[in-house]
Amino acid sequence: MRIAVDAMGGDFAPREIIEGAVFAQAKLDLDVALVGDRDAIAAYLKQHNYKESDRLTIVPAEGTIDMHEEPLEGLRKKPRSSIAVSMDLVKRKEADAVVCAGHTGAAMAAALLRLGRLPGVDRPAIGALLPTLIPHKPVLLLDVGANVDCRPKFLEQFATMGLLYSQYALGVKEPRLGLLNIGEEACKGNDLAIRVHQALQDNPHVPFAGNAEGRDVISGQFDVIICDGFMGNVLLKFAEGVGQVAMQILKEELPQGWQGKLGTFLLRPNLKKVKERMDADEYGGALLLGVAGVCVIAHGSSKANSIYNAIRVAKDAVDNQVLDRIRGQIKAQTSIPASIPSAVPDIDAPDDPPT
Amino acid sequence: MRIAVDAMGGDFAPREIIEGAVFAQAKLDLDVALVGDRDAIAAYLKQHNYKESDRLTIVPAEGTIDMHEEPLEGLRKKPRSSIAVSMDLVKRKEADAVVCAGHTGAAMAAALLRLGRLPGVDRPAIGALLPTLIPHKPVLLLDVGANVDCRPKFLEQFATMGLLYSQYALGVKEPRLGLLNIGEEACKGNDLAIRVHQALQDNPHVPFAGNAEGRDVISGQFDVIICDGFMGNVLLKFAEGVGQVAMQILKEELPQGWQGKLGTFLLRPNLKKVKERMDADEYGGALLLGVAGVCVIAHGSSKANSIYNAIRVAKDAVDNQVLDRIRGQIKAQTSIPASIPSAVPDIDAPDDPPT
Repeated sequence: MRIAVDAMGGDFAPREIIEGAVFAQAKLDLDVALVGDRDAIAAYLKQHNYKESDRLTIVPAEGTIDMHEEPLEGLRKKPRSSIAVSMDLVKRKEADAVVCAGHTGAAMAAALLRLGRLPGVDRPAIGALLPTLIPHKPVLLLDVGANVDCRPKFLEQFATMGLLYSQYALGVKEPRLGLLNIGEEACKGNDLAIRVHQALQDNPHVPFAGNAEGRDVISGQFDVIICDGFMGNVLLKFAEGVGQVAMQILKEELPQGWQGKLGTFLLRPNLKKVKERMDADEYGGALLLGVAGVCVIAHGSSKANSIYNAIRVAKDAVDNQVLDRIRGQIKAQTSIPASIPSAVPDIDAPDDPPT
Repeated sequence: MRIAVDAMGGDFAPREIIEGAVFAQAKLDLDVALVGDRDAIAAYLKQHNYKESDRLTIVPAEGTIDMHEEPLEGLRKKPRSSIAVSMDLVKRKEADAVVCAGHTGAAMAAALLRLGRLPGVDRPAIGALLPTLIPHKPVLLLDVGANVDCRPKFLEQFATMGLLYSQYALGVKEPRLGLLNIGEEACKGNDLAIRVHQALQDNPHVPFAGNAEGRDVISGQFDVIICDGFMGNVLLKFAEGVGQVAMQILKEELPQGWQGKLGTFLLRPNLKKVKERMDADEYGGALLLGVAGVCVIAHGSSKANSIYNAIRVAKDAVDNQVLDRIRGQIKAQTSIPASIPSAVPDIDAPDDPPT
């Protein structure tokens, strides 16, 4: 197995990316292609006594898509950018998966342009792992931004993809699937939610645990929660914001007074634990589901350990043939009755963007 | 001025409700009608040496709508329940506002049944105050659950009502209005968000500060944020869930080890401050906007101080004629161009439920 790692993306590239990749190569016993500026990568490897080999190669690329760049425009201007070259490796079967840090939009666009959608998938989704109250039990929320106006069958496909991913890449034996909604009852929700609820209940292939309310997202009761990309994106960013605000409030209030200063000093290791448990970064970011390749996108702020984790998740997905499972099951599992009219206009799945 | 206080609703009724009302009556120099079980209220007043008077009266009612009861059904079964009688007082102009704790749905239904909508308001909304990073600067989020499928003009009306409420009841001089969305740019969002963004930009009566992303909700940059009731409800419950999870994680991690125990002991007063700042209860719950009466709904878990705060907010709304201002401006300020077709089916505003 060979993983293509975009060595140039992320706040701490290439240093932390290379460190994580080198560690993963040895620890997970796989091949790694470091994609990016040959000179910069080679210099870093030499400086730290890491040796290029058949198992740790450099694949040259030119430039990166900046975090503030519009994805499609960036890709058009930089067809040899590190993310594009990484996807090309998978397309040419010279790599089995892509791991990159940051710019989810660019990764999504590059995956669609270079790899295309899996057959039977109308809309690929972006999944994100959020921490829950239960340590080491994240919840997979999807879609968090790829599709702002959804039809019921899109969400039904998100459910199938999310469940298979949870089961085979994350190792959750019997993942509990929830539909994000405003109440537990089948009659609750907006038009989309009511129709998706009904479709999931009628679908014998999808184990459906019912509606998940806002407070259930991080309770640890669900392993996979589906929603449209508008809701998911707002919720994800809100969660990140809340985490930051909570840490900021602790920082402001705890060290007040001499007792506060002493107490905060004594609690330093425990506060680090608190931060870790509240920190979404621990789970390595977003996943592209529904594109014809395994793509794991670590947070832009990823350090070596997050990159290692992302590579491990990618390896598990490849080992367990998550793509083949999605490919095989997505058609069988989608069964929205044609008789229920949709309030959302009938948008055909977009053609793959021109290559 | 006279405020009708539902003395029987909430987890700590009637004790904490009466305490808060008695305190508010004296402190704010207004009349209070305690609505509920005459014997129970009279007994409590007597026991604590509070005297019934022209300014502190008991208005008898029979029963309450239980938190788990379906609002409309509960109201039909209990037409003399404390929330219904409270609304009747406003309807008969024997009170200027209603304050109750808990069961937002029942309060909304009772207000619609007894008071009706303000002219020009298609859909009343439920607003909630959330704490932000900035102390004592909550954000008003609406709608948080009354309208799950919205048309653009509903949100435009929410904007108008929220701004007037923020300005005249909460005392924010120049409230900043945001539209909940997935990006800052006008082109971002789902169909609804894009259309509302355009309408607000074209509306000369509404000062519009632009799109608010998920992370902006609690940053303190906005005073009023509008969204559809599906999104708002999920977000509100998520926020409550996150607050609880954060406090739970602190509780689990901080006292680990002897240093942790000592540190936590030293930090007790500061941790209380942290809890206060993260706690949505501090702002007294939800508001009904667009019904023909001032209604403030405190959290079900309200203690006397929250009830006092809720009464103070109701008084400010009456003092500053928020209803008249909404009544006067809602028509002038709504100007969605008829030429933009909506993806959401054209749902007429519902008839007021039968009395």
